[in-house]
Amino acid sequence: MAATKIIGIDLGGTTVKFGILTTAGEIQDQWAIETNILDDGSHIVPDIIASILHRVELYKLDLADFVGIGMGSPGSVNLETGSVTGAYNLNWKTTVEVGKEISAATGLPFFIDNDANVAALGERWMGAGENQPDVVFVTLGTGVGGGIIAGGQLIHGVSNAGGEIGHIVVVPENGFECTCGSKGCLETVASATGVVRVARQLAEEWEGNSAIHQQIDDGEQVTSKDIFVAAEAGDTFALSVVDKVSFYLGLACGNLGNTLNPDSIVIGGGVSAAGEFLRARVEKYFLQFTFPTVKKTTKIKLATLGNDAGIVGAASLVLERNK
Amino acid sequence: MAATKIIGIDLGGTTVKFGILTTAGEIQDQWAIETNILDDGSHIVPDIIASILHRVELYKLDLADFVGIGMGSPGSVNLETGSVTGAYNLNWKTTVEVGKEISAATGLPFFIDNDANVAALGERWMGAGENQPDVVFVTLGTGVGGGIIAGGQLIHGVSNAGGEIGHIVVVPENGFECTCGSKGCLETVASATGVVRVARQLAEEWEGNSAIHQQIDDGEQVTSKDIFVAAEAGDTFALSVVDKVSFYLGLACGNLGNTLNPDSIVIGGGVSAAGEFLRARVEKYFLQFTFPTVKKTTKIKLATLGNDAGIVGAASLVLERNK
Repeated sequence: MAATKIIGIDLGGTTVKFGILTTAGEIQDQWAIETNILDDGSHIVPDIIASILHRVELYKLDLADFVGIGMGSPGSVNLETGSVTGAYNLNWKTTVEVGKEISAATGLPFFIDNDANVAALGERWMGAGENQPDVVFVTLGTGVGGGIIAGGQLIHGVSNAGGEIGHIVVVPENGFECTCGSKGCLETVASATGVVRVARQLAEEWEGNSAIHQQIDDGEQVTSKDIFVAAEAGDTFALSVVDKVSFYLGLACGNLGNTLNPDSIVIGGGVSAAGEFLRARVEKYFLQFTFPTVKKTTKIKLATLGNDAGIVGAASLVLERNK
Repeated sequence: MAATKIIGIDLGGTTVKFGILTTAGEIQDQWAIETNILDDGSHIVPDIIASILHRVELYKLDLADFVGIGMGSPGSVNLETGSVTGAYNLNWKTTVEVGKEISAATGLPFFIDNDANVAALGERWMGAGENQPDVVFVTLGTGVGGGIIAGGQLIHGVSNAGGEIGHIVVVPENGFECTCGSKGCLETVASATGVVRVARQLAEEWEGNSAIHQQIDDGEQVTSKDIFVAAEAGDTFALSVVDKVSFYLGLACGNLGNTLNPDSIVIGGGVSAAGEFLRARVEKYFLQFTFPTVKKTTKIKLATLGNDAGIVGAASLVLERNK
């Protein structure tokens, strides 16, 4: 009988998430283990292998039932060899042969890509992307990441740096410094810390009644979530912050639209928990910055898979590459 | 014997250029005919067919020697049916079945794409792109156009508007109005007329000795070429204009780099006749706006094929699609 299942793995600094999916994208089982980063992260791959073998036995499955294993990983991945380099949040200081070890232990084909690209594949396949060939995914979290699927394939570029949406420059003059060395990157104004940074900047010139503005002036700790909650409750200062962040996101999404004309640009990650409140504002600016065909055909959407995007996308990687 | 030649056609509003190329990309013969746009452009396709048949006979070739025919066309092209809609500079007011007619008359497979995409394919195959799988082409002429090749394929997007680099917004606030309805598009500041527009804007606030500035103040007609010539001769006002245009181009190219990480971004078209003088300045800003991996791996280059990019790219289209 032909293999009909896929194992998707989402490797993160805190947990490793696993899923057993059908080739149609249905999650049949999912579980997670703690990421043990002790001893230079040398336990991680053996733990992953043991967990797979254990679950396959537990569910009375056979490795022959599986088409392959896909994984999203932090760090710099090598698509050909399946190795990972410089994944510092895993304590991996050198190159780790993730693919070779997992393939050897399971006898299954193994495919890997970076976590943002894999999440993009997940949202594209079973999430808001509706399995269209052209989908851009933007994730707003502690940083801003993303992935681009164009013409049905992930865009990697010449050195695997394609899809670095967080480093699109949206403030070309007098922008905030970014960890990448540039200034004015989207990440500096639309990540969780970026939203707060925009708030602090706008606070300097703002006058009026606002509880959240008062908190900032008083030197209290304020989070991006606090700002969105206040904005939804009608705080005019918080609304001006959300508007500014939406302007930057709308500009970046607009130029992604003008460049790639995807079916949709899907916004996910923690900051996107603000939901339709944020989406509608980003869309307003997106429509301001796009030319007619793109306005009409590229949609701004919210991600729908949440934390499952990683395992779903990892499974999708197997279908995409195992040809 | 297997077919080893390709016909590439570059359909323009003034002339139709033809090339007979080998499958290795060598131009063996090339010629051109006038584009007869009379009678709603109804002579154009028959003229093209007659010219092909005539040349094949003249060179004592056989249609069986050809793999197929490729064409770059203005207007909105349908990749599946080979038809063209709304090519107003050809006087084509409705949909014209270019592909069906040419295929029927020659018995050869026919492939079409829009002229900017086809020029991008040409520069990528035999020009500055060095046949890399990831190349972006930007053409600076009366407008600003372009094409994106990523992962070895042209990016079309959901509604064939991918690669509209001229409509990347580089002046998000207080930008010039664009013909597309947006404001601040790259085309408004980096096309031939855009360069002059930037000059007129900067002229208002500029003081000093400059012949070209004087010409503008005197209401004389000034072209983008005049400005580049003056800048190369050391005119400080003209240099400030070139610097500003390079800033916008560097920002757009930088964000294309951050998004797609191509091997190269190739600049062509009339304005790029300014050559290394312009390229070096665009590169300076490109390096300012990109993150480290892109700085190191994405190159800014000048186009090398000139007017031949169209026929070469049209031939390349046949190799790409005829599978």
